[in-house]
Amino acid sequence: MEGLDLTEERLESARKAIVSAIKGWVRDSGSRGVVYGLSGGVDSAVVCKLAAEAKVSAHALIMPESGLTPDGDVKDAVSLAGKLKAKHTVLEINKAVDAVKGTYGGKIGCAPLGNVKARVRMLYLYLAANTESRIVLGTSNRTELLLGYFTKHGDGAADYLPIASLYKTQVRQLAAHIGVPEKIILKKPTAGLWRGQCDEDELGMDYGTLDRILYLMFEEWTEPGEVAGKLGLRKAEVMGVWRRVEANRHKMERPPAVGSVL
Amino acid sequence: MEGLDLTEERLESARKAIVSAIKGWVRDSGSRGVVYGLSGGVDSAVVCKLAAEAKVSAHALIMPESGLTPDGDVKDAVSLAGKLKAKHTVLEINKAVDAVKGTYGGKIGCAPLGNVKARVRMLYLYLAANTESRIVLGTSNRTELLLGYFTKHGDGAADYLPIASLYKTQVRQLAAHIGVPEKIILKKPTAGLWRGQCDEDELGMDYGTLDRILYLMFEEWTEPGEVAGKLGLRKAEVMGVWRRVEANRHKMERPPAVGSVL
Repeated sequence: MEGLDLTEERLESARKAIVSAIKGWVRDSGSRGVVYGLSGGVDSAVVCKLAAEAKVSAHALIMPESGLTPDGDVKDAVSLAGKLKAKHTVLEINKAVDAVKGTYGGKIGCAPLGNVKARVRMLYLYLAANTESRIVLGTSNRTELLLGYFTKHGDGAADYLPIASLYKTQVRQLAAHIGVPEKIILKKPTAGLWRGQCDEDELGMDYGTLDRILYLMFEEWTEPGEVAGKLGLRKAEVMGVWRRVEANRHKMERPPAVGSVL
Repeated sequence: MEGLDLTEERLESARKAIVSAIKGWVRDSGSRGVVYGLSGGVDSAVVCKLAAEAKVSAHALIMPESGLTPDGDVKDAVSLAGKLKAKHTVLEINKAVDAVKGTYGGKIGCAPLGNVKARVRMLYLYLAANTESRIVLGTSNRTELLLGYFTKHGDGAADYLPIASLYKTQVRQLAAHIGVPEKIILKKPTAGLWRGQCDEDELGMDYGTLDRILYLMFEEWTEPGEVAGKLGLRKAEVMGVWRRVEANRHKMERPPAVGSVL
């Protein structure tokens, strides 16, 4: 789909714009550099590579859950940071997550526990940011942000969002353009919050289709019925995506207040 | 100062507006009720009382740090929730905070550790919200929000902000109006994140003065020099407050992104 599929020229523009923005954010915030979570997936790999190109001081936190996160992901993350000479630290989240569970006591379902894990990771990112005077770069892409497919105050929490204007499929295109290892680009996307979690199963659709739906709705003002026709989908499938966007808008918005708002 | 000092009539309007908003938020979000942190201080006491008046299902989390939080605060919180027949749970944050410190390893200063504590409390509030299908009511007031005097993704994190339009001194006025125990209203304000922490020491000014400065600047478009003249302060003091507001604006804003923003 034209527009969604970026030409090499547009990818090069995106690369330059993001690198220059990262430089500017560090300079203007008066901080010492950046910190970000590095999972071994494609989104954080792109952020890692572009932060390296920006030549700012960077600290990559690799935050596996022992017993759940595949060893391969940790290896890929360590190897990428190593190659780019980025400072990196491996912090297991298990002890903090277990302590939260222990104190809470009650039964915790799979999704709420997943949210705890995402929030513990946020906590470490901001702890490193606070102690080392760094800004937190988020690794959320436009597809996740539009769908609200992230944990509020968890993986969605950041000071700056370098790849927020790129759909997931565009992040993959940019990853190939800037030389992220193919192995990372081709990985099945997952937030890794519970065993067998898989973005595309959870969202009920592959990212290629999701991005085309979102692109038509949000960049080309296309009605759901027409989107369905163009993509050979049922209207109910398109409406399901639309409802997810509406239901999760609050995750990106300032909390409603009573009376005058700041 | 007129405008800042609310008449009984305006306090009654504020009370009704907040009660009605809480009802509406629960209804419109399709949630089962509300959850909020109850510290034993005046802000959360007001939220607790107004949530009870709204007759929504409420769960108050009392989250002391053993060894730091005064026993009296926990007692006051438990007693208030008990009187209002609000479900309440005491959850100590120590184990989770210790686990985070243990895994992080490096030296953690007083302020970054304070932020960890505030974020652990957020984590419990959202965990209760997720498992019990509740919305999180924040207890931030306008003074804190304008000054950015809160932890990003910590005590500043909430789904709804019932008292966000009230300055700290107005929260005290409303507390008296709705019958919050005087003992709670007269307490020295503190976030309780480290020993001896005291809002007014940290901010370098008492809330009465701070609120007058903020009110003149933000509600009456008064220049800093004129504010200083009106209040008998040095211009540098007023500029210090103004600079704090500017430096912390990012805490309430959507993270900057590259390219098109949602």
